[in-house]
Amino acid sequence: MSCIPNWEQEWTLPYYLILLGFSCICICVLSDSSIWVPQAEIDAAVKLLLKLKVDYKQMTGQDYKAGCPPSENSIAPDNGPAADGADEDTVDPWNVATTNAKGVDYDKLIVRFGSNKIDQELVDRIEKVAGQTPHRFLRRGIFFSHRDMHQVLDAYEKNKSFYLYTGRGPSSEAMHVGHLIPFIFTKWLQDVFDIPLVIQLTDDEKYLWKDLTLEDCHRFAVENAKDIIACGFDVNKTFIFSDLDYMGSSPEFYRNVVKIQKHVTYNQVKGIFGFTDSDCIGKISFPAIQAAPSFSNSFPQIFGSRKDIQCLIPCAIDQDPYFRMTRDVAPRIGYPKPALLHSTFFPALQGAQTKMSASDANSSIFLTDTPKQIKNKVNKHAFSGGKDTVEEHRKYGGNPDVDVSFMYLTFFLEDDEQLEKIKQDYASGALLTGELKKMLIETLQPMITQHQERRKQVTDETVKQFMTPRPLNFKL
Amino acid sequence: MSCIPNWEQEWTLPYYLILLGFSCICICVLSDSSIWVPQAEIDAAVKLLLKLKVDYKQMTGQDYKAGCPPSENSIAPDNGPAADGADEDTVDPWNVATTNAKGVDYDKLIVRFGSNKIDQELVDRIEKVAGQTPHRFLRRGIFFSHRDMHQVLDAYEKNKSFYLYTGRGPSSEAMHVGHLIPFIFTKWLQDVFDIPLVIQLTDDEKYLWKDLTLEDCHRFAVENAKDIIACGFDVNKTFIFSDLDYMGSSPEFYRNVVKIQKHVTYNQVKGIFGFTDSDCIGKISFPAIQAAPSFSNSFPQIFGSRKDIQCLIPCAIDQDPYFRMTRDVAPRIGYPKPALLHSTFFPALQGAQTKMSASDANSSIFLTDTPKQIKNKVNKHAFSGGKDTVEEHRKYGGNPDVDVSFMYLTFFLEDDEQLEKIKQDYASGALLTGELKKMLIETLQPMITQHQERRKQVTDETVKQFMTPRPLNFKL
Repeated sequence: MSCIPNWEQEWTLPYYLILLGFSCICICVLSDSSIWVPQAEIDAAVKLLLKLKVDYKQMTGQDYKAGCPPSENSIAPDNGPAADGADEDTVDPWNVATTNAKGVDYDKLIVRFGSNKIDQELVDRIEKVAGQTPHRFLRRGIFFSHRDMHQVLDAYEKNKSFYLYTGRGPSSEAMHVGHLIPFIFTKWLQDVFDIPLVIQLTDDEKYLWKDLTLEDCHRFAVENAKDIIACGFDVNKTFIFSDLDYMGSSPEFYRNVVKIQKHVTYNQVKGIFGFTDSDCIGKISFPAIQAAPSFSNSFPQIFGSRKDIQCLIPCAIDQDPYFRMTRDVAPRIGYPKPALLHSTFFPALQGAQTKMSASDANSSIFLTDTPKQIKNKVNKHAFSGGKDTVEEHRKYGGNPDVDVSFMYLTFFLEDDEQLEKIKQDYASGALLTGELKKMLIETLQPMITQHQERRKQVTDETVKQFMTPRPLNFKL
Repeated sequence: MSCIPNWEQEWTLPYYLILLGFSCICICVLSDSSIWVPQAEIDAAVKLLLKLKVDYKQMTGQDYKAGCPPSENSIAPDNGPAADGADEDTVDPWNVATTNAKGVDYDKLIVRFGSNKIDQELVDRIEKVAGQTPHRFLRRGIFFSHRDMHQVLDAYEKNKSFYLYTGRGPSSEAMHVGHLIPFIFTKWLQDVFDIPLVIQLTDDEKYLWKDLTLEDCHRFAVENAKDIIACGFDVNKTFIFSDLDYMGSSPEFYRNVVKIQKHVTYNQVKGIFGFTDSDCIGKISFPAIQAAPSFSNSFPQIFGSRKDIQCLIPCAIDQDPYFRMTRDVAPRIGYPKPALLHSTFFPALQGAQTKMSASDANSSIFLTDTPKQIKNKVNKHAFSGGKDTVEEHRKYGGNPDVDVSFMYLTFFLEDDEQLEKIKQDYASGALLTGELKKMLIETLQPMITQHQERRKQVTDETVKQFMTPRPLNFKL
């Protein structure tokens, strides 16, 4: 049975059920009605019933019971996605998966999540309000979706400022280039809008979800903070905090956590995050902790008792469920809803079907990689959209849409014209895969080396400075 | 059907099920075997089957389905309590109810909760180890149940000390005499064993459970702290804390909360506390916050990094579910299990069927009541075990077991002989209800007046002192 494709099972199962039902009715008639029926017919019906029962068991793995339909998950237990979710990507804070080599279908995600597309009009408006060329992540649709960004800009134009909030789950010491995306973009936002920023390191979350000790998670938080600081944030405008530290250092933060926890039910987090009754109570209540920094009075050392300061959260789209929940709660506890800017996922070297993984060294370029490692990884592992032979490539051209080296260049190569030329040359076959990879290597190597140099300059003292609750320097 | 007692249903249902099963087998044989059976027998079997199906439906409310047993809760849907829970008292942190005028059946509760009775042997042992006459609450079985108290005394005899932990949920400014029971007893324990004490005020819990603001709950915590301090605790050995304050002041406390939250599932708290999917996530995760003070490293300012100091929790028995959970988690996170001493409930003036309620002014003697209010309340509301007329009372005597005035005297009259004499005189009819009430009034009035005088001396400065995380003065 295991070789029967799904669609066939779906077709044949109802057919068997109907037959089985019919046979039972026949036998009921034989038994209940007291009408005489020739013995041969009874025999035939009984034989059919027995055969159908055997087939039913083969097909569903369950014994047939009259009136008890087979349980849902007994149907098609081992082959592929369900019919109605066949082409739906999985995107939540813990899982991102797609079967499409181009990656997740972000337009569909916008519809599913109910957010708004960052269209050219919004990009132009950001340019106008910020008075700066939009960041390449905006120009190239890497930050592709938003919530309430127009409202943030409306207020900013009326001299009502806002603050930025982003974060990271510190599950290991090693960060890869993909982890930098929200920080690179957030730094740009901080610079052009001249606003304060809070960065949450959810070491408590990692402890709850992973097989790690509290001490490990906290250590990873501090190590990750160094990489984040190396992105160039302004210490006078940036507060980085570990949950394990800050929750126990700020009664105001805890008060907001409790307020949120009072206004979200288990049913709601079950629906949003897919928690089950076997999940620990820490996981179930954690979403409130990621929500709390969205409200300005969680940081009295920065904002005093003001609870009305608008928050803008740049993050990867997989974090949106937390903030859908936050935005639902906000008006019920008297706070403004945070606005959001969502980024696409950074593809793994092996292709855009999955998010990069910090646990697979070959799936990504790490911030600790040497120039040689970078070269080897790109050459060896970066999925290519090129043809099998140079001759074919010259003749038919490569496919930049699935080529990971090209995708990486869209993230890191600043020059739009150069990028466009690379795309055209690659598609035409003028540019070979090896040449494209060389361009990426030459882009990544200095970028990573410079990051490593900046990180070296981040002393424990600097980390302590960034992570100490304190006033920040800004004008609202 | 609804008048059939439970036991009969329990007997008859299996009987019907067996008959039904048998009939089905008969008909199967008729259908499947192809052996000839006289038509009359088939008719009879079919009739029996149909009758049984009708009976089954009447009894269970469900249609009979071969192979599908009736679901558990479909049996006896509408008549009274289940057989095994018929006379079971309700005791959990939010509800205490019994139908017995003498109050909850505490012996049964010990069996149900799996704790141990405080017997004369243990009372004698406490007397020996402490070198003091046992407190009247021990002498009179008001603290009646324990967990691991012998272990605590074993260690204490070997110069391994312990610390005390008790608490209160500050749901209003007004505390009544019943609220003092754990504190009066805890003060005695602190004095005789010369040990540190932490007192948790669960203002976060009250915010989560009640229709109150955070500010109100915190204010009630501080007001309640004054009444607690007025019980005479040693400021050098006592730390009182509001969760809303301390959670945000102690990273070590939060670390323990997260540790506990990682090791308790929703299924477990659902089983222990009866939470439902509609409960907010704050309630679901709160038990970890009441558990955390059971571990000494939650208070590094007192115990440094030591996590091995034994905790003893004196509390009313309704709080036991929290600590059953705590004791289950403790070894899994490398901490000793807290020991417990459980008290009975303080009866409402109206009788021992329920716990006193802070929301009904006439259900209890409040710590703010004037001597006149005390007199009126006792005379007017204290449920009497006396007879209707003086003549009958003299002739048949009163019933001290259900008389609230006598119960209150067992809590507050120090002299054992005097109490015994009152009991005998009341039972014999020599002592009238009015005279008994007068004795209670004369016991309560000076007690409350003195409490009020001590409370007046508790300044904001004193409260701040008690509630500041700081080292305590003790030898372990």
